[in-house]
Amino acid sequence: MQTLSVDLGARSYPIQIGQGLLSKQLLPAHIKGRQVMVVSNETVAPLYLQTLLQQLDGYQVDTVILPDGEQFKDLEHVNRIFDALLEKRHNRTTTLIALGGGVVGDMTGFAAASYQRGVDFIQVPTTLLSQVDSSVGGKTGVNHPLGKNMIGAFHQPQQVLADTDVLNSLPERELSAGLAEVIKYGLIYDEAFLSWLEANMAGLRARDPEALAYAIYRSCEIKAEIVAQDERESGIRALLNLGHTFGHAIETDQGYGQWLHGEAVGAGTLMSADLSARLGWLSQADLDRVKTLLQSAGLPVVAPEAMTPERFKELMAVDKKVLDGQLRLVLLKSLGQGVVTAEFPVEKLDETLSAGAQLGQL
Amino acid sequence: MQTLSVDLGARSYPIQIGQGLLSKQLLPAHIKGRQVMVVSNETVAPLYLQTLLQQLDGYQVDTVILPDGEQFKDLEHVNRIFDALLEKRHNRTTTLIALGGGVVGDMTGFAAASYQRGVDFIQVPTTLLSQVDSSVGGKTGVNHPLGKNMIGAFHQPQQVLADTDVLNSLPERELSAGLAEVIKYGLIYDEAFLSWLEANMAGLRARDPEALAYAIYRSCEIKAEIVAQDERESGIRALLNLGHTFGHAIETDQGYGQWLHGEAVGAGTLMSADLSARLGWLSQADLDRVKTLLQSAGLPVVAPEAMTPERFKELMAVDKKVLDGQLRLVLLKSLGQGVVTAEFPVEKLDETLSAGAQLGQL
Repeated sequence: MQTLSVDLGARSYPIQIGQGLLSKQLLPAHIKGRQVMVVSNETVAPLYLQTLLQQLDGYQVDTVILPDGEQFKDLEHVNRIFDALLEKRHNRTTTLIALGGGVVGDMTGFAAASYQRGVDFIQVPTTLLSQVDSSVGGKTGVNHPLGKNMIGAFHQPQQVLADTDVLNSLPERELSAGLAEVIKYGLIYDEAFLSWLEANMAGLRARDPEALAYAIYRSCEIKAEIVAQDERESGIRALLNLGHTFGHAIETDQGYGQWLHGEAVGAGTLMSADLSARLGWLSQADLDRVKTLLQSAGLPVVAPEAMTPERFKELMAVDKKVLDGQLRLVLLKSLGQGVVTAEFPVEKLDETLSAGAQLGQL
Repeated sequence: MQTLSVDLGARSYPIQIGQGLLSKQLLPAHIKGRQVMVVSNETVAPLYLQTLLQQLDGYQVDTVILPDGEQFKDLEHVNRIFDALLEKRHNRTTTLIALGGGVVGDMTGFAAASYQRGVDFIQVPTTLLSQVDSSVGGKTGVNHPLGKNMIGAFHQPQQVLADTDVLNSLPERELSAGLAEVIKYGLIYDEAFLSWLEANMAGLRARDPEALAYAIYRSCEIKAEIVAQDERESGIRALLNLGHTFGHAIETDQGYGQWLHGEAVGAGTLMSADLSARLGWLSQADLDRVKTLLQSAGLPVVAPEAMTPERFKELMAVDKKVLDGQLRLVLLKSLGQGVVTAEFPVEKLDETLSAGAQLGQL
């Protein structure tokens, strides 16, 4: 087992990564009270809930099983967690445990942030995406019909437990979606990691445990470094949104749950790289590397054909990356160096938005 | 105009108290962006919204008018604020302004805490209760059918603007409800202020502006001192809940909106004083002083007849003041000195809960 520490002063917490962690007694050290509420979903609970519960002998343990899918990530379903907490009389010393992917983690985290104005929670992410991204950094929240993640809180977990064994049950499509975020870390921050990913993509898709563990560790390490510098996302942390402004527009247009988050980010990442190339920051060879890597990860690289440039711009205008009416995007100054900027000619953005299926051609 | 500073480091903010503040240009100095969302209710908006809006020339100003009453303080109505923010495309630099009583303030504050994971807000409290209590200290939130204020966040305002002129339109019953909280400050913290209240209660009820301004100032000052010592309510801040554990039980039993919050706190305060007397901490004369003062403020001092001791205990067990299954109450060691304790024989609590209408007799 490897342990990374996310350094946030009084809110610091460990990320533990390795095989078989779910059946080790790692949770009790991070539970302060006697009550625990495990939140999971209908897909994950049958696979891993019993194993997890074996760690929780001697606690008052209650469970909430939510339906599986991004389309249920809303206030109504967070309210089901509040219902359970109140029905079972959980008090301020309770600990919530999120057992599932990013949706379960985001909702459980927001419930923990808001229940009695804040209680503890622990993340046990069961997808690659949530292990490398959504369980690190304290962002929690739910969607609104008019925008993704528009309602939420910053709330840090007490512990993140990333068991690589659980990835063996992950559908192919979700593995690829997680790899989109892994690739992102290389693109914005670390060209050496990008090269490692190019060399190891086949192994990652074959679920080689060593390769997965390294990819998770390095991704979390990069994210932890960035979050520690900017917990509340006023500056550098925005780099983590590479591909997300375009990606959120795709998800909103298609309705949550049609495209996986990571898939939309994959297509959005190529759009960001394309715009960076149009600005002269990336060469054609750089752009081809990005495209090849995304495709080798099994990701879609082209937005839905029906999405016009106008539709993209309409949806991007309510994205959180808009400050005072100006559209700010994460672009690439070079491979391994992201930048947050509103300094680009709108015609170049239009060219990228109009490129459509051409983007996918090498 | 008097200005108090609530000292919370980077989250410090001023409370401005005086006559006619609503029509002075005091808001713009505390608004960082160009967008403002004013949240008010159907009772207050017709009286004061236009005056307030005159301060906001040059901003994008949108409004949400909620129905008036504690029964609407729920997630569904907070969601109406989110709807308006998203429909009008408010971004992270927006400022929410709460124009109304505690319900509007709590809901607006929670919406501000949760919208895009946290935006600025300003409190313009229009009731005595919210001027002396709910606009100070950063507690925000909504009710759940199973418990009051169970969903929320700590989120500090940028500014609190307490205009004493608006109290002239306040119904008698609501003025009394506000006085319950004013009396609380004397009881838990400052016997001299308690004596001042005994001497000035008639003037306060006649809405003498000088008397009101002093009562608001001293109440906010005491609350600010306590909150500054314990922002997240892990210790001394719990003193501010004098009467609230009993009071919340009354409100929950009766259904929100039947008893005013301050009325329930008034009856709850006398129950706390009664239990303190049964423990030998207050004399009969002390208890009579508390009773007389509450009655002179126009407050009910007896819980609804139909509420049995069993019903009280059932409802109090989900109150936030329960730590690890043990009921903690705010009691009075003496007049002017509150204490948070779980150290009392349960028979004494039963005696207080069984006393019923006798409590109201001098």
